[in-house]
This record gives sequence, structure tokens and C-alpha cells, in this order.
Amino acid sequence: GTKYGCGIGGCGACTVMISTYDPVAKQIQHRPANSCLLPICSLHGAAVTTVEGVGSIKTRIHPIQERLAKCHGSQCGFCTPGMVMSIYALLRNHAEPSMEQIISALDGNLCRCTGYRPIIDSYRSFAREPTCCQLRGTGQCCLDQEECVCSSSTGDQTHSGLCNPEFPPMDPTQEFIFPPELMRMAQEQLRTLIFHGKRTTWISPTSLNELLELKAKYPKAPLVVGNTSVELKKTHHDAYHPIILHPVRIPEMYVVSSTDDGLVIGAACCLAQLRDILMEAVPKLPEEKTKIYQALLQHLRTLAGEQIRSMASLGGHIVSRGSNWDLNPVLSVGKSVLNLASEDGKRQVLLNDQFLAGCEHADIKPKEVIVSVLIPYSMKDDFISAFRQAESQKNALSIVNSGMRVLFSPGTDIIADLSILYGGIGSTTLSARKSCEKLIGRQWNDQMLSEACKLVLEEIFLPSSAPGGRVEYRRTLLVSFLFRFYLEVLHGLHQMVRTVYAHQHTGSDNTLSQEKMSALVMLPSGVPQGVQIYQDVDSGQSPQDPVGRPIMHQSGIKHATGEAVYIDDIRPVDGELSLAVVTSIRAHAKIISIDASEALRVPGVVDVVTARDVPGENGKDEQAYAEEKVICVGQIICAVVAESVTQAKCGAEKVKIVYEDLEPILTIEDAIKHKSYITEERKIEKGDIEKGFESADEIIEGELHVGGQEHFYLETNSVLVIPRVEDKEMDVYVSTQHATDVQELVASALNLQSNKIMCHVKRVGGAFGGKITKPSLFAVIAAVAANKTGRPVRFVLERNMDMLITGGRHPFFGKYKVSERRNTKATTKLPWGVDVSGLATWSDTQG
Amino acid sequence: GTKYGCGIGGCGACTVMISTYDPVAKQIQHRPANSCLLPICSLHGAAVTTVEGVGSIKTRIHPIQERLAKCHGSQCGFCTPGMVMSIYALLRNHAEPSMEQIISALDGNLCRCTGYRPIIDSYRSFAREPTCCQLRGTGQCCLDQEECVCSSSTGDQTHSGLCNPEFPPMDPTQEFIFPPELMRMAQEQLRTLIFHGKRTTWISPTSLNELLELKAKYPKAPLVVGNTSVELKKTHHDAYHPIILHPVRIPEMYVVSSTDDGLVIGAACCLAQLRDILMEAVPKLPEEKTKIYQALLQHLRTLAGEQIRSMASLGGHIVSRGSNWDLNPVLSVGKSVLNLASEDGKRQVLLNDQFLAGCEHADIKPKEVIVSVLIPYSMKDDFISAFRQAESQKNALSIVNSGMRVLFSPGTDIIADLSILYGGIGSTTLSARKSCEKLIGRQWNDQMLSEACKLVLEEIFLPSSAPGGRVEYRRTLLVSFLFRFYLEVLHGLHQMVRTVYAHQHTGSDNTLSQEKMSALVMLPSGVPQGVQIYQDVDSGQSPQDPVGRPIMHQSGIKHATGEAVYIDDIRPVDGELSLAVVTSIRAHAKIISIDASEALRVPGVVDVVTARDVPGENGKDEQAYAEEKVICVGQIICAVVAESVTQAKCGAEKVKIVYEDLEPILTIEDAIKHKSYITEERKIEKGDIEKGFESADEIIEGELHVGGQEHFYLETNSVLVIPRVEDKEMDVYVSTQHATDVQELVASALNLQSNKIMCHVKRVGGAFGGKITKPSLFAVIAAVAANKTGRPVRFVLERNMDMLITGGRHPFFGKYKVSERRNTKATTKLPWGVDVSGLATWSDTQG
Repeated sequence: GTKYGCGIGGCGACTVMISTYDPVAKQIQHRPANSCLLPICSLHGAAVTTVEGVGSIKTRIHPIQERLAKCHGSQCGFCTPGMVMSIYALLRNHAEPSMEQIISALDGNLCRCTGYRPIIDSYRSFAREPTCCQLRGTGQCCLDQEECVCSSSTGDQTHSGLCNPEFPPMDPTQEFIFPPELMRMAQEQLRTLIFHGKRTTWISPTSLNELLELKAKYPKAPLVVGNTSVELKKTHHDAYHPIILHPVRIPEMYVVSSTDDGLVIGAACCLAQLRDILMEAVPKLPEEKTKIYQALLQHLRTLAGEQIRSMASLGGHIVSRGSNWDLNPVLSVGKSVLNLASEDGKRQVLLNDQFLAGCEHADIKPKEVIVSVLIPYSMKDDFISAFRQAESQKNALSIVNSGMRVLFSPGTDIIADLSILYGGIGSTTLSARKSCEKLIGRQWNDQMLSEACKLVLEEIFLPSSAPGGRVEYRRTLLVSFLFRFYLEVLHGLHQMVRTVYAHQHTGSDNTLSQEKMSALVMLPSGVPQGVQIYQDVDSGQSPQDPVGRPIMHQSGIKHATGEAVYIDDIRPVDGELSLAVVTSIRAHAKIISIDASEALRVPGVVDVVTARDVPGENGKDEQAYAEEKVICVGQIICAVVAESVTQAKCGAEKVKIVYEDLEPILTIEDAIKHKSYITEERKIEKGDIEKGFESADEIIEGELHVGGQEHFYLETNSVLVIPRVEDKEMDVYVSTQHATDVQELVASALNLQSNKIMCHVKRVGGAFGGKITKPSLFAVIAAVAANKTGRPVRFVLERNMDMLITGGRHPFFGKYKVSERRNTKATTKLPWGVDVSGLATWSDTQG
Repeated sequence: GTKYGCGIGGCGACTVMISTYDPVAKQIQHRPANSCLLPICSLHGAAVTTVEGVGSIKTRIHPIQERLAKCHGSQCGFCTPGMVMSIYALLRNHAEPSMEQIISALDGNLCRCTGYRPIIDSYRSFAREPTCCQLRGTGQCCLDQEECVCSSSTGDQTHSGLCNPEFPPMDPTQEFIFPPELMRMAQEQLRTLIFHGKRTTWISPTSLNELLELKAKYPKAPLVVGNTSVELKKTHHDAYHPIILHPVRIPEMYVVSSTDDGLVIGAACCLAQLRDILMEAVPKLPEEKTKIYQALLQHLRTLAGEQIRSMASLGGHIVSRGSNWDLNPVLSVGKSVLNLASEDGKRQVLLNDQFLAGCEHADIKPKEVIVSVLIPYSMKDDFISAFRQAESQKNALSIVNSGMRVLFSPGTDIIADLSILYGGIGSTTLSARKSCEKLIGRQWNDQMLSEACKLVLEEIFLPSSAPGGRVEYRRTLLVSFLFRFYLEVLHGLHQMVRTVYAHQHTGSDNTLSQEKMSALVMLPSGVPQGVQIYQDVDSGQSPQDPVGRPIMHQSGIKHATGEAVYIDDIRPVDGELSLAVVTSIRAHAKIISIDASEALRVPGVVDVVTARDVPGENGKDEQAYAEEKVICVGQIICAVVAESVTQAKCGAEKVKIVYEDLEPILTIEDAIKHKSYITEERKIEKGDIEKGFESADEIIEGELHVGGQEHFYLETNSVLVIPRVEDKEMDVYVSTQHATDVQELVASALNLQSNKIMCHVKRVGGAFGGKITKPSLFAVIAAVAANKTGRPVRFVLERNMDMLITGGRHPFFGKYKVSERRNTKATTKLPWGVDVSGLATWSDTQG
């Protein structure tokens, strides 16, 4: 049931629940986790619950599954097992969660079909807040009425279709218990765990001393807790570590203590723990001490999803120093201190901009590990704020983030100290250190702001060719954050003035203008307020007639139990091979040679397949395998089939392609210039064009640009081809919106009659138009390999390959021209939204 | 492509070609072999060619395959790969074989569909005799005519459809060569080969001395050459040997030499070699010396099939002393001598009735091995004959066989010595030793015969309860053989008299009466003379219209290449289990208990399935799994599913059933008495019955008995059930004539709608009515097991289980009564062949 969605902990489709027993606290901890990031070694002593363990049609459907299905929370169903697991992990920890917890639990789960509302609605019934049907906001709750029917504004009879649902209650006694043998194991005396892999040795020490010894012995070995950052480097940069240290059984690294200076948090604590600790601490402390914690909480609520937050450690977050890691700038402006240890003893370093930039004198040494982090209390005259701007409010890396702090000389608005740090600008966190220094002693007013903006933009220089692009936008964010910080502090100063200094000043300066106040309003981030209402069916309608009734997806229950079979869930077939493709790294080039000799020497590699192996037609509008030249980056050149996916990928990396570059066409405008069209130009004309424009009183004309868009169907393109033994027949199991096209292209590629190709499409894990033409090419790729080797071939694209190869919905470019005659009844009005796809062209960056 | 047909070397469906290199003779030997009998250890150094190696659609179809397919030599196609292999092995040894060799090569291949004629016709084109179309015997060969059309007796236009076929010629250069590495291996210095299995160690020594040492060390270890007899004991009696000696590399055991006394043949020579040696020797020797060899040849031509003859050794044939082994009585009357060897030295023993009965003083000792056999020349006054009666002329164990020899005092018809030995009567070969002694000195005349018959019947006593039944028939054969021997000898004596003693006697006695001579005529055993002719189609018939044309079976080529997929050829499915059944050993009994505990402990056994595991209907007219009682021997009681067939069978043997016997119903008459009917009595009536019989001049009435009959479809009942993951759907791949019945019974057994069950029938390897109702029950057996375990289940019956469980076509019993009135035009004539199946009953021996 667990699904592969992205491989980088970004979509939550692979969520499972990890349960461990803490022998000291005598507590079982349940945590949601992205299984794509979980090294198997890290699971020693842990119980893993997948969606199958929650409930199944064969045994018992869990209320989480039933309610999600019956409340229309599944459409394509591919994200559904992950949704179930996220809520399941939540409910195992909190039997009566708040709506905020429910929303938060789903932060890390992407859904492309539902828009989330039905999913959240289905889980509303588990919330401790009173819930009812979906007619909230109408002023009358259906539960208070005899019939759940209300009159909508149009006067039609409507009802929610979901009100007062008779769901079986949760019964926690029916849940799986934590395996007693694991509990016993956790209580036994600890011993060092060592796992030897082919390339990597994984060591889990039992004490800090042992860890420090190991770190001295293997200074290059990373400490891995949640594996959320090391794994990504492995996946994307093929980084590999001969030794990995796994410090999850060292009590010192899980310490949580409150000192006179602040809170000390163990470096191995995960971000969700940090959040919970801070949420518990804030109400208990004087408000002035908690400004830093509130700033951190602001980020901790939006950073990644609950799965990542439950696995990623505070120490890992700090030490891996990603430029768009949100907490570091805030921790830095809060003057946090890292407690380090090594064989040579303990020491403390300041987590500042120099540490974050990896400056040698400010950094930890190879033998050292971060044991814990001191996050000092903020002071009375401190103002600390955290900012982030991302593509979505949650579960997205920030584009730019920031931590800002100002300390005023007591009782004044004179800047005594100022720190401004930015993430997302350079390769490390950057500090506007010089600007801040220059501003010390200045008053907090508009002149200071204006000066500050100028200084910051000068100091935090972002060249127009900066990696990551969107330079203008990011530069704007630099000063926007600063402007907002200015206002927040100003507002805070005014508040203080009103309450403390009321006797000294007059009232005129003491409030922000309404315009400025509007900049301080937070975007709503709570529970979605959307409501779906259903038109009531005529009472005379036959109960068998489904039209107009809200009917559960036929596979809804199976989606929720993980029993719905998608292509990659099909049981392995005897003799099955895995396929990996080699794609073009050039936008436009001649293929001079393909050297597969080294790939063929990789153990497990069975064959390398190229355009020469296609017995018939090599694709239709596009070539399946590139022939003499490539016309875009990501075009498939050849395929490696091997006994395992790993071997196939390894083989693909070993194929050597020699290119001879040609001039690339990179934009639509370029393509038009080169007359490089896919189809004929499309035009929509209405009226007598010539006459119309001649006699026009006014002519409106212009251009229309629509950007490209990744479809991001949650199920990546997947195909399983099984050659039958007789008559070259083939079964093609494929995730496609256009089965006939698959059948025809495969048959024509293999030079067979179409009736020899059986194309099976049981269901598709999302498509959105993205699986109309491309799946046929992938099917051809796999079918040609199966035909050549005589063995079944499975070809499931990894997310990055899917995005690279398919290229998503094309960008569009259109022109419009409309004429209008005034003072006459005969007007020519052309639709503004002309279908401009006629100008989609062969641009070389993507098909 | 190689097929399982019987598992005991009886049907030839599994024929492969074994090629070995003889480094002394510098010759490659190709031999056909039943792979079901071949221990893998015996193949060290051998090249095995299966039908895939002969030719395939993917590469090149071999002429043997093409001609067999195009000449309509395949129908169900299951025997076809074996047919191809038998002829292939022949052609590799004899590029231009005689028709006799071709017929003989196919002796060991059963076909249930074609009647053999089309198979032999297709291979006629390889024979060195002139061949043409199938119009032999019409006096005009179509090859001599312009058009291959002749007028049949009815005057219709007919033609063979096969004349002058344009087949591509054989091209021996295209055959696989013997692997050079094996040739090299054979030439290298020999070393002892030892294979250690789980239970058995297999040792192949390099010299006679080494063999004798091993035999001394392991006196109980059998010597295995072709494994044709040891394997059967293993299959049927679970006999097992911790040590097996394989003496195929010992030159002394392959000796062929001619001495003053006779021919000495190595004990490891196979029967086909013996045949070839004798056929070569006979024409070269004076006729009087060869009488024994001719008698042996008579049996060697009919004994078993070419595969068995090519594998079974002379020594093995002698020493295993099967009562219906044909050669022993003949070798014994020929006074053959066994050359034995042991560590203690060499000695000779007479192969006589005492040796054959295993009498201790006449037997070989545990440490001894038979090195070779001396078959002495016969003498001038010898008459030696060999007799066998079997269910078919070839490839069937004899019911009774015999060797007889008489030596006359020179120049007389006075018996000087007489030996008569019978096989197939008792558990060993029996000698009419006393009778023979009494007859010495008697003249060879009718009185002697009459006395001899009396004596033999007294001495060779066959009680009416003798194992094997058919006592009357066998007793008849005892004297029939004797009578025939009497006539043969008498005829021989007359011939001699006519030629040698013509001067002494008058002519009246010198010829046998025509009636007696008729008893000496041999049954025709040569080339079938059948002809198939095809009606010519109208010349106006569209070429696309197939009606009336002789069209090759659509799968003909695939049958012949082995590429046609039958149930058991379907690739293994991931997680697939094998199923073995436990059947009733009682004719009628209550099942008191089923104890599966020991079976479940067998490694690999996954589950034991009984009637209790059937969620729905347990069969329709018959129970699939027996419930409270069994009503016949062979009724399925439960099923064991395991990771492998061996494990499943092992588990099935460990299930303990406790029965409480009930009175059995064993015959149809019994069943009628107990009113134990399957269906209502069936009657066919015609005319006014009452009136008809009242006014009848004559009433004819009687009973009609038709015996039961095994269908012997070459493909045993086979089913593969693959549960789909969703909705309890199942794919059922089954060999059946009635797919709907399978679908309905499986659905009802699993309590599912029929549309959840996909029943796939691609082809059936023979059925003949035997796969109408039974396959549904086997499908239910497997489907219930698959449903319980959630895993795919394959259930392929072994031949003995298939015959035991299905019971074949029932015996029938019918009554008829016909009235007739004479001298009137209104006669009532009832069909004689009334359908009497109405009286088929539940008899307990078989369903």
C-alpha cells in the first residue's frame, strides 16, 4: 500500500509509522516518517506500521480509512495511504487531537486531486472540537434539525450528503500493540550495533564516549539521525559515506533542560519535539523571555511536513546549514550556543553567521559532535522576528528566509544591537553584519529604514546570474522582510510607549497608520473553510439511480487500505527486469556514439537497448529512443535493463554518449524565428477580418504568455510489459489516459498487429492531462526492451526523471487582435482567451 | 517445451536427446531418453538437447518440426515435442533412416489424438525408401502425374493435400554441434565423480577395480545405468538408496566380443545397442547358431520404446528380474552365462530359472557385479522361440511372456532337452522345469503336446486370486504359447525333413494343415498402410474460404517447437505454491479425524486445506473436498500447499486420516440394489410399448455391459490459480473442456459473483470427454487453497493421481427389450445401441 511519490520526503505518499520504546521514560513513541528517506539500519528495534497494518478489507477497515473513503477524501487514491498513515500516527499519540493538530499532521502530504478539503472534512470527526456536517457557516447546524436539508441562496434544495454520518467509533483497543519482544529488547543492556553493507558501515554506539571515539576514528563520518538531509545528498549527488554514525541511543543528545540562560535542547531531538517543548515552555515563561521561542515556533509550524519534522534532528538542521533551512538565521540572531564534545573535551561555540558560513575559526572540528544547543531567553528590550517566503505556506523550502533582532538601549528607540540574517540568497546563510553595525545608535524611524534598505541591498548582493534565478523577486524579499520587521518593531515600540512611557509622550506618534497596520496582518493559516454542498435528488428518483447522489469512489475503501493496485504494486513477475534510461544532457546535438561496453559489465545488467533495437516504428510524433540527434535535454537515448533497479541505474550511469552540439532553440520566440513548429499555426477568426479591421474605430492587440506547468500526478509514469511466450503477444500494464495510443504505438514499434498487444489500465494515480501521450512512449521503451530480451520489463520513473523527461504542460504564446466599431449595433467581439496552443513549438529545453 | 506425460517413461512426451562423446571410439553418441527417468547426476559430461534446441519460431524451424506440423501430425499438440525429439535423435544418428527405423524410433511415443498415421506420414519424407504422397496402394503415384488428383471409388474428386510438398530440405550443417568443452572433458584423464545430495550420494567410478571396491564397501548400493527400473521403484514405492553407483565409464562393462561359445556383451550396454549388435551379427553367422539371437531380436523390437531401449542396460534388465521383463526367459533357455566380478575375483553363473527366482545358491552376491553376459550360439538341433502378449504390440509390459527351447536328439524328433520359462505369471520368472523333465525322450507330436499342456498347467499354477487378475486369460496364454511353439517346431522339423531326410520319409506327414499354418502367421507390425484423402474443393471456392481444405492446426508449428504454452508451461508466478492432495484409501468410510500437525511441520509446507476452508459451495454434483465421509477410493480429502511440489507431496504423505469403514458399493449391480443412483434412470422408448409387447411375435431382450475406460489425455489435469490483490478476483488457468463450469464452481466455492473469476483456457492437451466436469473440482481445490493462503497455487496432477482420482469414463450397464411382429408392415425396431448411461451409478471404487 505504501506508495513511491517523490523519493525525497516531499509528498508523503510513502508515509509509515515508526514506533519505538523509550526504556527510560517507559513510553512508546509513534512517529510518522517518509519511508523513502528511512535507512533500514535506523529501524533496528523499531516497529514499522504500514497502511496494511492499519486495516484492510480482508480483516477490518479502520475508521480512519472508512471515513476518508466515505467522505470522498480519495480521488485518484495514490496519496490516500499516506494520508491515512499521517492521521493514524497522530491518533496513536493524541486520541482527541485539535483541528490544528489534524491540519498540521497532514502538512507533509500532497494531494493533487481533492484540494484537501474533503480529506480534512473526513478527519474533522476525530477532532476534539465539536464537529458536525459541512454546513458550518450557514448559521444552522444540520445536527440540530430533523432533516439535514437547507435552502441555499439559489433556492435549490441542497444538502451536504455527509451530515450526521453513522460511522463506527474509534476503538483504540483494536490497534496493534507494540511488539513485546521489541520492548524487551529495548530494556536489555545496550550493545553497539554495526551493520556492514557493501559500501557502507552503519554504527550505532551506546554512549557519548563511544560516539566520540568513533568520531575521532572516522572524522569524515556523518552523524545521521533522521536521514532527511544525508539521503537527499545521496539521491541527488550520489554522495556516499563509507561510515555512518547513528547517535540515537545517547541520552546526552536528547537532553531537555532549562537553565538560567535559556533552554538546552539535545541535538538529536527532532524538530517536532523542539516544537512541542517550546509550545509547552512559552506559556510558563515571562513573555519577554520567549520572543526567540515564538519566532522559532512560527517557522517550526510551517517548516516541511510532520513526517520530516518528526525525523529531522535539531543538530542535523543546524550542522547541515542548508541555505534555505529556516531555523538557523533565527537561532543565530538569538545568539544560540552549540555545546560541542570530542575526545579532547567539551567546548561551546556561538551559532552565528560565521558558523553558518562554515568559517574555519567558528566551525566545529572534524572530531567534534554537537551534543546540545542552548537557546538563550530573549531580553526585555529585544525584538526578534522570523520571516520566510515559500511557494506554499507549508511543506516547501523557503525561497528567502530571515531572522532579525534588534535590541534597544533601555527606555529608548536607539538601536543598541542589530542582527539581520538571510537564507536562500547565497550558498550559505548571509549576515548583513556591516549594515547592522552602521545602524547601531540610530533611532528606529523611517530614515533609519530607508538607510537600512540601501545598506542591506548593497551588502547582500545578488547578481542577476545568481543560481536559483528569480533575482528581482528575491531582492524584493530582502527589503520586504526588513520593512515588515521595521513595522513590527515600530508597532511593538508604540505598544510599549503606550503602556510604559505614557506619561512622557503625547499620543500623535503612538499608533501606526491603518495602511501600515495592514502590512502586519498574517495570512490565514487555519482550517479550510470551504464547504461542498450537494443538490438534493428528486424524492421520486429510483434508489438505484446514482445520478446526482454523492457516491463514494468505487475504489475508495481500497485506496484507503492500500489494497488498490497501481502499476508498481503488481507483484513481481518471474524473470522480470528493471529498466533505467539514459537521457540527453544536451539541448540539441548529434549523437556521435553510444558506448555501452562498461554498462554491460555492471553485474546484473542484461542488455542495453537503443533505437536500433526497435523492429518497427520508433514512436509517432516523437521518437521513443533518440536516433541520430537529440532535440532536448532529457530525451531518452537508450535504456539499460538489469535484474534490479539499482543495477539498471548503475548501468545507465556507465553508458557513454558522445555528442556534437548543434545550435539550440530555447524559447518559443526562437522557435518561431526558426520556423520550428510541431503543428500548423492555429488561428481562431470570427467575422469578416479584413473589413472589420479596415472599418474599425479601435483595434486592440497584444500578446499572451502562459508559463509551463509540471502536472505532478502523484504516481510517476509506470509501465510493466510482460511478453507472452506465444506469437510475440505482450501484456502492457501502464498508467495512461490513452490506452489505445499505447496499444497502437507498441504494436507499431514491434511491427505487430495491434491485437497482439493487450493494454491494461486498471487505474491511474493522477494524470491531469499529463498521461495522454507520454505513457505510450514509455511503453514503447519498455516493450522494445522486453522484445529484445524476451523477459518482462518494469519501468517506473523516479520523480526527477519523470519531471525531466516529460517536461509537463508546455508554455504557450499567443497573439490577439480585436477590432471594435463604436455607435453601431454590429460589433465584432472576439473572445479574449484565444487558444494559443497553435504556437507551441519544438523548443529544445523540453519536448 | 518438454512435457510431463506419465513420469514413468511410458509416453515419450518428455523425450530429450542425450549426446555423449566416446573418447575411445572417437564418436558422438546421440540417444533419445525419457527425461522423467533421468537423474541429473547421470548427465555429467552429456549435452542435453530439448525441443527448443531443435528449432523455434524465434530462430529457425527445423524440417522435422515443420513437416510434422504441416502434415497434420499434431492435434492437441502435447505429445508433439516428444515425437520431434525421437525423430531428431534418429536423424542425428542416421541421416537416411529406413521406414522400420522411423517406426521404431516412435515406439515409445504415445499419441492419443492422431492415430499415428499422420505423424508417420510426415516423417516418411526422411526415409531412404522412395516416398511420395499418401496415394500409395492406388497403383498410381501422384508424383508421376501432372496433377495430384485421382478418382476415388465413389467418383468424387479427391487428393491427398500433402503430395509433392515443397518442404525445405534437411541441412545437417545447421544442427547444433557437440560442445567442444565436453569433448575436451571426455578426453581428459578420468576422475571419480561424487555428487552428494540431501539423502543420496551418487558415485561414478572410473575403473572396474574402483567399482568393485565401492561395491564391497556399499553392498546394498544399486548399480544404475539408465535408471529405468530404479526410478520406477522410487516413484511408486518410495524406495530410496543412500548410495548409487553409476558404472558408465568402465570399458569392461561395454565389451562386445565374439568367442567360440557365443557373443559376450557388456552388462552396461543398452538394449538398443544389444539389438544393433545382434542385427549385425545374425547375417554374418551360420543360421543354426543364431536361433537364440533371432528370438531375442523378436523381443528387442517390441520391448518398451526406443527411449527406454536406449537407456536401459542389459545387466540392469537381467538383474532387476521383473516378472514381465521379456528377455530373461529367452536368455535363460539359451543358457546364457553371467560373468561376475568382485574384489574376491571373477566367476560365472548360469542365467537360469533359479537365478531369475533369486535363489540364493544361484544368485550374485552383494559384493558382485555383472560385468558381461555370454549369450551362447544355438545348436543345429535347437529350436528356440520367444513369445509375449501385451496390451499393445509395442511399448507395453507383457501380460505373459515366455522363452521356449527344445533340443532334439540328432536326426530325430525325440526331445533331448526342453526348457519352458514364463514371465508375468508369478512375482518372478517361472520355469516348467518338472514338466520339461518328464517330456524328455518323448516324440514331438500331438500326444506330447496334449501331455505337455496338462503338465504345464499343473506346474505353473495360477490361483484365481492371483495378483494382476485376468487369471483365465493368462492361463490360456500359457498353453497358447506352448501350442504355438509346438507348431513352430513341428513346422521346422518338417522343413528339415523335407530338405535333409527326404530320402527316408514319405510326403504325407511333411506339411502342416492350412489351419495349423494359420496359427503361425505373424501379426503385421510394419508401416501403417492407412491413407487419408481429402475431398477436392470447388475450383470456384474463394482462396480465403477454408471449408474443405486441409489446413494446418493453427498452433501446429508451436506444438512442434514446444512453444505452445499449456498450463504447466506458464511461467512461475511470484509467491506461487504447489499443491498436493491427500486422497481416500477407503471405498466407503466416515472420516473420523484429519491430523495435519505433522504435515505442517514439513519444511516449506504453508497450509493444509480441508472442506472447512471452503467459504461457499463445496462442489456441485460431487464434493470437491470430502466432508464427513468418503464414497470412493481416490476421493480428495484435503490439500497440502507448499513452496515446492516435493514439499507438498511430502506434506501430503504426513497427513493422518482416521476412517470408520462403511459397507462399500463396488459394482453397478450393487448400486442398483442399494438404489444408489447419480441421476434418474434413463429410458429410451419408441412406439406403443404395452401394445407392442402384447402383440409381439418375438421379444428380444438382454443386458449390455460396457467397461470403464481411462481417457488418458496426455496432459494431466492442471490448474494454476492466481488471486488478484483486489476484490478477491481470481485468474484460473485450467485445462478444461468446460470453462463456464470452472468459473461457476470456483465462484460458488468462494462465495463470489462469477464475474470475479476469470477462467482462461488457451488450449487443452487432450481431453476426449475426460475434462468436462473434473477440472472444475480441481480448480475449486486450488482456488480454495489460494483464497486461504492469498497466494497463487499450481496444481498439476501426476499421472497416477489423475488416473486414481478421475476414474475415467464410467462403466455402463443397460438392458434392452425389443418386440417384433412378423408378416406385417408395421414393425417396431428399437435401436440396439441404447444409451445406457442412465444406469451409471455411484459405485464406490471410482466416481
